Amino acid sequence: MFHFSNSVASLRSSEIRDLMSLANKPNMILFSGGMPDNELFPLQEVDAIYMRLTAREKQMAMQYGPTPGIPPLLGSLTEFLREKGLPVDDNKLLITTGSLQAINILGHAFIDPGDTILVENPCFIGAISAFRSYQANIVSIPLTPEGIDPEALQHTLDTLQVKPKFLYLTPNFHNPAGTLYQHSTKLKLIGLMRDREIPIIEDDAYSELYFHDEDIEHLQTLKSMNPEGLDICYTGSFSKILGPGLRLGWMLVPDEVYRKCELIKQSIDACSPSFTQMIAHKFLESGVYLPYLKRIRPEYKRRAELMTQLLDELLPESCSFTPPRGGFYIWIQLPDGTDSTSILRRAIEKGVVFVSGKTFDPHGQRNDRLRLSFCNSSIEKIREGIPLVVESIREEIL
Amino acid sequence: MFHFSNSVASLRSSEIRDLMSLANKPNMILFSGGMPDNELFPLQEVDAIYMRLTAREKQMAMQYGPTPGIPPLLGSLTEFLREKGLPVDDNKLLITTGSLQAINILGHAFIDPGDTILVENPCFIGAISAFRSYQANIVSIPLTPEGIDPEALQHTLDTLQVKPKFLYLTPNFHNPAGTLYQHSTKLKLIGLMRDREIPIIEDDAYSELYFHDEDIEHLQTLKSMNPEGLDICYTGSFSKILGPGLRLGWMLVPDEVYRKCELIKQSIDACSPSFTQMIAHKFLESGVYLPYLKRIRPEYKRRAELMTQLLDELLPESCSFTPPRGGFYIWIQLPDGTDSTSILRRAIEKGVVFVSGKTFDPHGQRNDRLRLSFCNSSIEKIREGIPLVVESIREEIL
Repeated sequence: MFHFSNSVASLRSSEIRDLMSLANKPNMILFSGGMPDNELFPLQEVDAIYMRLTAREKQMAMQYGPTPGIPPLLGSLTEFLREKGLPVDDNKLLITTGSLQAINILGHAFIDPGDTILVENPCFIGAISAFRSYQANIVSIPLTPEGIDPEALQHTLDTLQVKPKFLYLTPNFHNPAGTLYQHSTKLKLIGLMRDREIPIIEDDAYSELYFHDEDIEHLQTLKSMNPEGLDICYTGSFSKILGPGLRLGWMLVPDEVYRKCELIKQSIDACSPSFTQMIAHKFLESGVYLPYLKRIRPEYKRRAELMTQLLDELLPESCSFTPPRGGFYIWIQLPDGTDSTSILRRAIEKGVVFVSGKTFDPHGQRNDRLRLSFCNSSIEKIREGIPLVVESIREEIL
Repeated sequence: MFHFSNSVASLRSSEIRDLMSLANKPNMILFSGGMPDNELFPLQEVDAIYMRLTAREKQMAMQYGPTPGIPPLLGSLTEFLREKGLPVDDNKLLITTGSLQAINILGHAFIDPGDTILVENPCFIGAISAFRSYQANIVSIPLTPEGIDPEALQHTLDTLQVKPKFLYLTPNFHNPAGTLYQHSTKLKLIGLMRDREIPIIEDDAYSELYFHDEDIEHLQTLKSMNPEGLDICYTGSFSKILGPGLRLGWMLVPDEVYRKCELIKQSIDACSPSFTQMIAHKFLESGVYLPYLKRIRPEYKRRAELMTQLLDELLPESCSFTPPRGGFYIWIQLPDGTDSTSILRRAIEKGVVFVSGKTFDPHGQRNDRLRLSFCNSSIEKIREGIPLVVESIREEIL
């Protein structure tokens, strides 16, 4: 007999996991995960890094580091972020165990049970879980293909009876929606949020994974715009590029937020793994990071384009999606009232998995959408799997 | 202007850190940290492990793993714990980012703001921080040299107006007290706690680090006694032996607790680093773990014995301590009313650091004790540093 806390009552396991156990087939085609492809990891680069580590560096790798991160990585990451135009001198950097931990810590720093927070709809499931675990009252704002809906945001801000603790956003290659906010949307957003004393948490896990150089102007982060009268807590990650198995992300935040977050991190895991921090540092320092990015971008682009082309050909007209310009995901809008869980059940029977829409609805309800990941499947698997997904959709909606 | 949560208000940075910044000398002698010695890490073993990893294992190391841990490590750790007599078949294993994260997650699973929990006094600072961050009402029970004081525990259980959510204990080589619970104390404790529906969190980070084979009977964990009518959530760590830089610990808990904790972990960091999990797995699987332990135990014993001998010779009679039989720490009782923070200030001036007593008081008050770590200093540094500590004590109490 255990008496668990109230905060835990609101956490649920994800639907795919429950369903997968029902259909645990070998050779399942996985359009479900948000992970890089195993075949694309920079194994040779990491080998070369490991071989060149000195005994002293290895000792540092085996030892506790300071809570904010090991100094070499803080140094190289600061320079890396500086080159991307981020205001590293007026803010503090904290290395976290994946950027999910950065989001979780920010949730802990701001949320008391019952506090209202704002998120996009749809929203990254990890952030929803983290905010739920602190018993937030989650209010969501719809996404349009250009980014957050400014009118809906304005309306929510005007009508809410309480001041939200923060607004959580993923402006660049949204998970699950794939959306890249247009620069003009970012400017509108900044105008709307200015001087309201509602900080923004800007989740920037995907912006390096762009497919088109002409999008660079839209990719500028809110944090690097450094807007006056608006506090931005910026989070980033090594997971989608170098490898999620390192479990490394970061937050770049105002000093006052940093001091709270450092204390919270001390109480969660004391510090992130020094071992993988050392590898990430060498990856940045040795200059292999950008060449590696240049190598993988076209690979993900190829997959996205093939998935887009197949969906364009095969999807019924009552379904729609915005072709992704970067990131890992395609987000399909199904006809009103469609239940993507039923489609998922059919798809699993056929040997292919994706994630149902309600997983990403902050309110766990709306299910007429679904997410396909193109990141973790070969060209052959995409060619084989997409017709099966479309078949499952057609069976359900006809 | 930020509006932080109430839970964050109760978190404080540690005193040593504040003081260290005042006296940031090179060559400071560190009796403060709870980390293994850099010189003792198994670097050659880890090199050999890395060299033998296959490309597929390296891919697994770079990728997300399942939230409970990568299957190879879950397998090898299960066998390792089975050999230690732990009830691995009736419980579930969850790999965590250090055992602090296991303790934090258990805190989250059980504590609602204002809930009462029981801990020892003194108590591991990481656990205090974690429980405070969930706004627990912390009630503490004194430790004796034989373990938790059974009469005080009985009295607390009899007089508390509410049922505590759990009792958190470190029975083997306590941090900071160094205490090894006597087997008879463990039996008394089990008798006292039976059928009360108050789970025990048993923190077992140090039990491998014993100095005397004849203590093995006392080292049996509560969890492996598998007492009827008492639920035990067991936590362990790779940090004190293989290396804290890997950030790996675990919990072995009843299924019902596991299911909640897995969801919480999903919302904190999704999974622990696969990269270091792979190394820990190979360390266990290849059989180098026990030989390595046998190599380091006498080294820590030598340091403990020297520190004990010097303190026996030099400490004023009004101070006392129990010679450690394992672990990393010596805990000194100073005369009534002594302020160990003043002693610490003097010691820093002389070039040596330890941790003041109130750091480990769950109520942040009692300061007539101090902790010395012998784990991270060479024989020479111990010989040099202990006279400086004693000098600082003498100056303060005379």
